Amino acid sequence: MNLLEESLSRIKPVDRSWIDKAAARQLELTKPPGSLGRLEDIANRCAAISESLSPSVSRALIAVFAGDHGVCEEGVSPYPQAVTVQMVLNFLRGGAAINTLTRANGIELKVVDVGVAGELPEAPGLVRRRVACGTRNFVKGPAMSAEEARAAIATGIDVARQAAAEGFELLGFGEMGIGNTTASTAIAAALSSLPPALLVGRGAGADDQVLARKTRVVERALALHRSHLDDPFDVLARVGGLEIAAMCGFCLGGAAERRPLVVDGVIATSAAALAVRMKPDVAGYLFAGHRSAEPAQTALLQILDQEPLLDLRMRLGEGTGAAIAIKVIQAAVAAFTGMATFTSAGVSTNETPIVQQ
Amino acid sequence: MNLLEESLSRIKPVDRSWIDKAAARQLELTKPPGSLGRLEDIANRCAAISESLSPSVSRALIAVFAGDHGVCEEGVSPYPQAVTVQMVLNFLRGGAAINTLTRANGIELKVVDVGVAGELPEAPGLVRRRVACGTRNFVKGPAMSAEEARAAIATGIDVARQAAAEGFELLGFGEMGIGNTTASTAIAAALSSLPPALLVGRGAGADDQVLARKTRVVERALALHRSHLDDPFDVLARVGGLEIAAMCGFCLGGAAERRPLVVDGVIATSAAALAVRMKPDVAGYLFAGHRSAEPAQTALLQILDQEPLLDLRMRLGEGTGAAIAIKVIQAAVAAFTGMATFTSAGVSTNETPIVQQ
Repeated sequence: MNLLEESLSRIKPVDRSWIDKAAARQLELTKPPGSLGRLEDIANRCAAISESLSPSVSRALIAVFAGDHGVCEEGVSPYPQAVTVQMVLNFLRGGAAINTLTRANGIELKVVDVGVAGELPEAPGLVRRRVACGTRNFVKGPAMSAEEARAAIATGIDVARQAAAEGFELLGFGEMGIGNTTASTAIAAALSSLPPALLVGRGAGADDQVLARKTRVVERALALHRSHLDDPFDVLARVGGLEIAAMCGFCLGGAAERRPLVVDGVIATSAAALAVRMKPDVAGYLFAGHRSAEPAQTALLQILDQEPLLDLRMRLGEGTGAAIAIKVIQAAVAAFTGMATFTSAGVSTNETPIVQQ
Repeated sequence: MNLLEESLSRIKPVDRSWIDKAAARQLELTKPPGSLGRLEDIANRCAAISESLSPSVSRALIAVFAGDHGVCEEGVSPYPQAVTVQMVLNFLRGGAAINTLTRANGIELKVVDVGVAGELPEAPGLVRRRVACGTRNFVKGPAMSAEEARAAIATGIDVARQAAAEGFELLGFGEMGIGNTTASTAIAAALSSLPPALLVGRGAGADDQVLARKTRVVERALALHRSHLDDPFDVLARVGGLEIAAMCGFCLGGAAERRPLVVDGVIATSAAALAVRMKPDVAGYLFAGHRSAEPAQTALLQILDQEPLLDLRMRLGEGTGAAIAIKVIQAAVAAFTGMATFTSAGVSTNETPIVQQ
């Protein structure tokens, strides 16, 4: 049994009875029933994931997976492919948005090179697990071989396992890869059967001409690979990306380790949707962090059966949405585990007035 | 000139030219233009408020203002009025939701008794500035005298000034007061001229019967005071609350001190709307923290000309929505002040490729 199969077999459904126990506990806390809204649902699910009424999500990690995309040669991004390696170097020097947000929010950051097409130095915080120097152009053939896809998934599983072993309690993930909204849109189209024209978005800033080209590229890819899009693993290998495969593995590995997982934008959501299609029980461990400006995300969120926690019109990736959503999840758990009860605080409920001394 | 008039005269409009300068700086940072969405708008406004491209919002305070409401005798809440003082005691012992959220988010908390109807002990973190032991029932007469309203506003101004003097850079505010969604709904109806039936909500958990009673109470109050609802100060004194007056003063005092202000739910929004009606330039200093479940908030947000940063279906008050929104604002400023530029990081833009060495 290889790492993927072993992880799939280790993923257990989140136990609904713990959600009920947590919901009962919420009613004892000094607030009107339900008044913390989604914070209550978040905390209840964290309790269920850890099977404890004292869940802890203090130690948070964001893993950013980076990979390049052969489909860039079709002109689907206004940025040159070299920006992938340039931005990874920026991550390693601490100058990117995700560096500032993880620093501000007390979140550990790891950068994983799973498929960058360019030289990267040894650096603290860089996990060197390159499977290939980018994918191949998926309008001409499969983006990856089955072996490459499997190796990239295994990388994500490993990173999640290692994070759990290091004591991280809350695992967020994001990505860097010029051209990867095109791959994610192709995945969304394959998984949802919706027409690409409804799903394609402007990514990092495509103009009308680039947008039309992206749409045509996704249509051509789906036509080329149409007889190989029934299985989520095949979708991933045919039209995905190395960093998307690794994020998919990260979801599988994180769920196997029973950790809450925080999904970033559209590309991370495409990886999460693939993981859910591979193993539906993964969905119980996922928290959709923020709404992307990309239309494909809406289709992918239906597979996760979730609404994002935040809608701040962000469309950057890198895990930036997850970095903000992590604070919401930590706040939800802090309220759940830290609040007094009506009885302990001597506060009247709407049914049982307590007379103050 | 009294404190209110002095504060009103000291409030200057936020200088739009600084928003343009900040927006120009955003274009230099290593991200696609506009890709941080609302985070960019937040940071730009914080820069403009402080007239600096290095704004700091690290030191944050939330002030929770507490007061009781004579209108409770009409049966507008499922909770007894004694819950106000019980919850203030809970705040002082650290067991309420706002305590857990401010602790989790590194935010200082002050609780201000501006009108609680019950005994409160000396305690660290309690600011004792009681103007009266609650308002009077506003279906029978004015909630407050003009002197009481003025004193409560002055309290809020003082708390904001003191916070600025203590070095707090970001000021959130919230409230506790059984019955205060009824007061806020009356304020929203008076300021918006919309019918109360469109604005009234379930507050802390009103059932259909209580909801109908609340609607009727607001209608009666507006009918009784109809010839005194043209001026925002009169609206506040007639159908407001002591904690609402203090929050209104907090907005005025905070804007006079040029601090970004984070508004909590519907009741805080009603106070902010009154402040904006008193001095429209206040709006530039306000950040609507979260969307309330109360319909009145939508009408009030139109006066602020803002969409809330968060929608987590919270309806607790206490400043809990502001406590989460503060982390979003801090993240926005962290990205703005901490990110590398395209030039410094050697990253290609969509117009000027930089070849990696």
